[in-house]
Amino acid sequence: MIESGKVYLVGAGPGDPDLLTVKAHKLLALANVILHDDLVPAAILALAGPRAEVVNVGKRCGAKGATQSEINERMISAARAGSSVVRLKGGDPAIFGRLAEEIDALEAANILWEVVPGITAGLAAASALGASLTDRRKSARVVIITDHRAEGSAAPTPSDWQALASEDATLVIYMPGKNFENLREQLLAAGLPHEIPAAVVSRAASPGQSVECATLGELASLPKNPAPSIVLIGWSLDAAVRRHLTANADSLLAEADLILSSR
Amino acid sequence: MIESGKVYLVGAGPGDPDLLTVKAHKLLALANVILHDDLVPAAILALAGPRAEVVNVGKRCGAKGATQSEINERMISAARAGSSVVRLKGGDPAIFGRLAEEIDALEAANILWEVVPGITAGLAAASALGASLTDRRKSARVVIITDHRAEGSAAPTPSDWQALASEDATLVIYMPGKNFENLREQLLAAGLPHEIPAAVVSRAASPGQSVECATLGELASLPKNPAPSIVLIGWSLDAAVRRHLTANADSLLAEADLILSSR
Repeated sequence: MIESGKVYLVGAGPGDPDLLTVKAHKLLALANVILHDDLVPAAILALAGPRAEVVNVGKRCGAKGATQSEINERMISAARAGSSVVRLKGGDPAIFGRLAEEIDALEAANILWEVVPGITAGLAAASALGASLTDRRKSARVVIITDHRAEGSAAPTPSDWQALASEDATLVIYMPGKNFENLREQLLAAGLPHEIPAAVVSRAASPGQSVECATLGELASLPKNPAPSIVLIGWSLDAAVRRHLTANADSLLAEADLILSSR
Repeated sequence: MIESGKVYLVGAGPGDPDLLTVKAHKLLALANVILHDDLVPAAILALAGPRAEVVNVGKRCGAKGATQSEINERMISAARAGSSVVRLKGGDPAIFGRLAEEIDALEAANILWEVVPGITAGLAAASALGASLTDRRKSARVVIITDHRAEGSAAPTPSDWQALASEDATLVIYMPGKNFENLREQLLAAGLPHEIPAAVVSRAASPGQSVECATLGELASLPKNPAPSIVLIGWSLDAAVRRHLTANADSLLAEADLILSSR
């Protein structure tokens, strides 16, 4: 099912190998060359065939890595040499994955390519929280956004937030950085209420996953867990956030009981 | 890996069994009871184990089906009877899937549950078109919305469109209906230009998939292909839409050549 001389731009999903698509799974086993981002975990790379060349072309904030044009060159030369190439990206390639630039380069070089979608981080975060992003009683739309200037596009301006932040939308914020105070201020200034539910899901569907819940007003007080993380904000999360806070309180009470009874 | 007395709320993805997650694939093979939506194709249901009870609980526009409370009852009674239940939904459960209502019912009945994400239709549509939904050169955000009043939530008002339709967002419109003329008018009135690229992907990643491309100004002239379809609008689609139109023109020219040469 894999073609040689072709590049498959494949979503690796959020990290759990069980959240790969069946197609990604098959392509990984068959590809001659796998060019992967930094965020793709070893458990997924272990699915590569025994003779595959597996190369980390990841770029992470601050760390040194291949430039975009080096990645493009590498894809093109491998395909030209007759390899079947999997270009493996965290999450879904069409959401903050620089997919457009890679397709442009492949087209310009006249290389065959195909996109294979993956579970994007925002949907993995919603699953981890146990929440729907739409709710016909509360939330009619979903806005996917990043607050990360390093992605190269302009970060949202106050008037962008004004337009996007509505009480009947669920905001899904990729690469939120560590400055939740700024995010909180922008969203409150845009008219969202202090009490709208908020959640931060760190490493969704990966070892070390954490889910932290609060309200927008309390967002800045949440612990800054390791990247990648997703911030979710909206009334659609209300029941899930309440459940999470109750479960946490219950487990703290149980812990306290245990300490008291052991004295 | 499957637990009895538990309900798995599972995304079936867009239709292609290869776009199921590995986890969904395993759960389908192991579940005692599978309660599925109308849109889930036979090729996916065929993955159920030989002794599974497979029930269509789908509701489609106009057609008669189980009510939401009948679906809830069915999930709850099967789980109470000790079954492992897969509640299988087209696409991803958290996007226009009534997931919140089903979780509320399961929680109220004190039934264990877990959400397993799937490839949502909008991302399958982007893959089929061969486009990224974000592009750091052109599009910094993605807005997922439905124009379908039957979903129960309010359809977007002119002021909603005004807020959401921005030249640096990609709009992903689920259940767009057949009235593209109305959609076109709303988006032009909201300030989007006639020439912004638009695509309609019908039955993404399913047999009978079609991709139709145009600009927003020409949107109403596109053929109304079978549901489910997704309308995509944004500058991020520019290169993909151009490629698609060129490929179509080339194939029409080749066809015309063939006709002329056969005379």
